[in-house]
Amino acid sequence: MKVYGDLGSGNCLKVKYIADAIGMPYTWQDVSVGTGATTTPEFLALNPAGQMPVVVFDDGRVLAQSNAILRYLAHGSRFLPGDTFTAAKVDEWLFWEQYSHEPYVAVARAHVVYRGGSFADRDPRTVERGEAALDRLEQALAKSPFLVGEAMTIADIALLAYTRLSPEGGFELGTRPAVRRWIAACEQELGLPALGSAATH
Amino acid sequence: MKVYGDLGSGNCLKVKYIADAIGMPYTWQDVSVGTGATTTPEFLALNPAGQMPVVVFDDGRVLAQSNAILRYLAHGSRFLPGDTFTAAKVDEWLFWEQYSHEPYVAVARAHVVYRGGSFADRDPRTVERGEAALDRLEQALAKSPFLVGEAMTIADIALLAYTRLSPEGGFELGTRPAVRRWIAACEQELGLPALGSAATH
Repeated sequence: MKVYGDLGSGNCLKVKYIADAIGMPYTWQDVSVGTGATTTPEFLALNPAGQMPVVVFDDGRVLAQSNAILRYLAHGSRFLPGDTFTAAKVDEWLFWEQYSHEPYVAVARAHVVYRGGSFADRDPRTVERGEAALDRLEQALAKSPFLVGEAMTIADIALLAYTRLSPEGGFELGTRPAVRRWIAACEQELGLPALGSAATH
Repeated sequence: MKVYGDLGSGNCLKVKYIADAIGMPYTWQDVSVGTGATTTPEFLALNPAGQMPVVVFDDGRVLAQSNAILRYLAHGSRFLPGDTFTAAKVDEWLFWEQYSHEPYVAVARAHVVYRGGSFADRDPRTVERGEAALDRLEQALAKSPFLVGEAMTIADIALLAYTRLSPEGGFELGTRPAVRRWIAACEQELGLPALGSAATH
């Protein structure tokens, strides 16, 4: 499997996290965010949506959309529940992540990390909705060790990616103890350094 | 099954379309968009995300997120391919719909239908990205009768809902013949009136 992605992008990191967790071998083809590399004819032939990550399997099949990739790679592993309804609860988080979390938490971070903006000049609506998304995670994780039940699933991997990086976008994790406990548990299970759980902007 | 939703919302209509298509009985509990009905304590107890649609099954289990509901209800039906990779290609469209289509195509329509705006004063970035989303659909549907292969799947149902209503938001379908042919095919298969395929704003 070949992964086209940027290791600074949470959406791309999801693919790395699941592949490493299930022991799926891959090569990583670096494609930098914001350089126009996703709008070349070659890249658009791989993914007409012009988005990363994209994976190309050894037989030439192509799959895009980080959460579709997560779901496909996790199939049959402990990270995707076999019970259909429990898997649907995982899907609920995956779709919520792309609609209500990433467009705010990741976009605020991109403003700072990729466009050189400051915390103070972030778009107020983006900040407000990002804070609301993090509040919802705190509420859910105060009741349950992981987002769906007692064990880590791809719902956690999908939400971990940008939540862990959210302090880079000016979000405060110090006031969200359940989120911090969950990040630490995920980092430990995935063998990641203690980044998000230690950050307290 | 009880569905909480607004029949003017494409996200809610997806649930009606799949339930009708597979013959799943349901009662519809009308919850109007934009009235604050999704922020009451009762509604937030059902769905802490405060979003519609939400379905409550007869045994009390609750599921939110239109595309997660689509995927769950379609499980085992002809609308969700049994092959894991083909299902992943369906997922690719489902996630793309929520990230790159709905936030523009539906939001431009909401500006006109729910907030009394005009086509002329729509947000330019929303219009630009909505047009790009419809262009991508045209490109895909010029090559294939449905979004994933030769038969209708929930990828089509998910994209149909707001694409069919897009002329209400000022988008032009007359210049997109493949999209119009596809809408007509979906409307026929789902037993819907010829709304989107006939509209030529």
